[in-house]
Amino acid sequence: MKDEVILLDYWSSAYAMRVRIALAEKEVDYECREENLLDKSSFLLQSNPVHKKIPVLIHNGKPICESLVIVSYIDEVWHDKSPLLPSDPHQKSQALFWADYIDKKIYSMARRILWEKGEDQEIAKRELIEGLKMMEGELGNKRYFGGESVGFVDVALVPITCWFYTMETYGHFSSEAECPKLVSWAKRCVDERESIAKTLPHPQKLYDYYTDMLRRFGPK
Amino acid sequence: MKDEVILLDYWSSAYAMRVRIALAEKEVDYECREENLLDKSSFLLQSNPVHKKIPVLIHNGKPICESLVIVSYIDEVWHDKSPLLPSDPHQKSQALFWADYIDKKIYSMARRILWEKGEDQEIAKRELIEGLKMMEGELGNKRYFGGESVGFVDVALVPITCWFYTMETYGHFSSEAECPKLVSWAKRCVDERESIAKTLPHPQKLYDYYTDMLRRFGPK
Repeated sequence: MKDEVILLDYWSSAYAMRVRIALAEKEVDYECREENLLDKSSFLLQSNPVHKKIPVLIHNGKPICESLVIVSYIDEVWHDKSPLLPSDPHQKSQALFWADYIDKKIYSMARRILWEKGEDQEIAKRELIEGLKMMEGELGNKRYFGGESVGFVDVALVPITCWFYTMETYGHFSSEAECPKLVSWAKRCVDERESIAKTLPHPQKLYDYYTDMLRRFGPK
Repeated sequence: MKDEVILLDYWSSAYAMRVRIALAEKEVDYECREENLLDKSSFLLQSNPVHKKIPVLIHNGKPICESLVIVSYIDEVWHDKSPLLPSDPHQKSQALFWADYIDKKIYSMARRILWEKGEDQEIAKRELIEGLKMMEGELGNKRYFGGESVGFVDVALVPITCWFYTMETYGHFSSEAECPKLVSWAKRCVDERESIAKTLPHPQKLYDYYTDMLRRFGPK
């Protein structure tokens, strides 16, 4: 029986991009369903009743929610191609540790830079830059966080980099000046991995989208 | 070679209790080092340079940080005894999803109930109760979240229940009235699992400890 794989998606979501990159790395055929986040489908609400958020992967009728949980699942189910998590338990624990760090320190601060103002935005900016420098330290002289090939930490981190241009412009900082090695790594990911190049939207497109969202909804 | 296992611990930390329960379930011999959180050891700072927090497990010289990452690691390394995560990838993804939910919705709100005041405390209380009811729904008629035996979600959730008495008293609510089935489950965990009974401090001891902390360090 052929696997039925459906992704409930939204094009600008860095969380959803993680799942698209993982599926592309594994060469899994799937149906991508773009949600309207202002009018969510009953399928989304029923597949993720707890958080009611994309991304959701539905594999043979069974939903999986939360992007890092989904990427782990994909890595385990389609384990023969492009392994993302190391098989060694200690190395695996380190990858899971950094992915958790990326969620807490980078993705959450990125959102705060975009949706908060004044002192709150400044605090988020400082935290984000601290987090990015920490990731630069972890990368060291490796090609990818996964070593010679893209791994779990690369998949977790790289989507947010296509938001850098928007964050920099509105947050008044330069990722190139703050963390040049991380910016080089992000460029390398796009240049060398088709899975990433085809998944990440153009930074200008995200900037235009955010500018429109800001005009319509906020910041606080 | 015998494994060298060291836990950097603090008795009242629900995060650290997760690790102690997992090690007890697996019957792993280890050295428990109680940290002074007001004067952290250089070993802790060097083992967890990113967060500088307990718990840290050091296994044959290699540190692992973040309680859920540690419990996953323990489950994988000592896999023959008391499996905590299901081997089926979908079931495993569901356990990881709920553990993540417990961190975001229950542990973080518990801390806010204890350390915030007024409206912020009220919001945290509502969110916590909503989270506990959600967990009650997930438990359903099962003996444990793991089914007939204690699993990853049980280990993730049960430590916070020994803080219920303190939270209820200071937060003015009753967990028994709000989520009686969850309170029964917590009691069952303590009554039936020695790993849990010997790990969880007495609620009154935590209440006295917190009352003293509050006197010394205030809520915000």
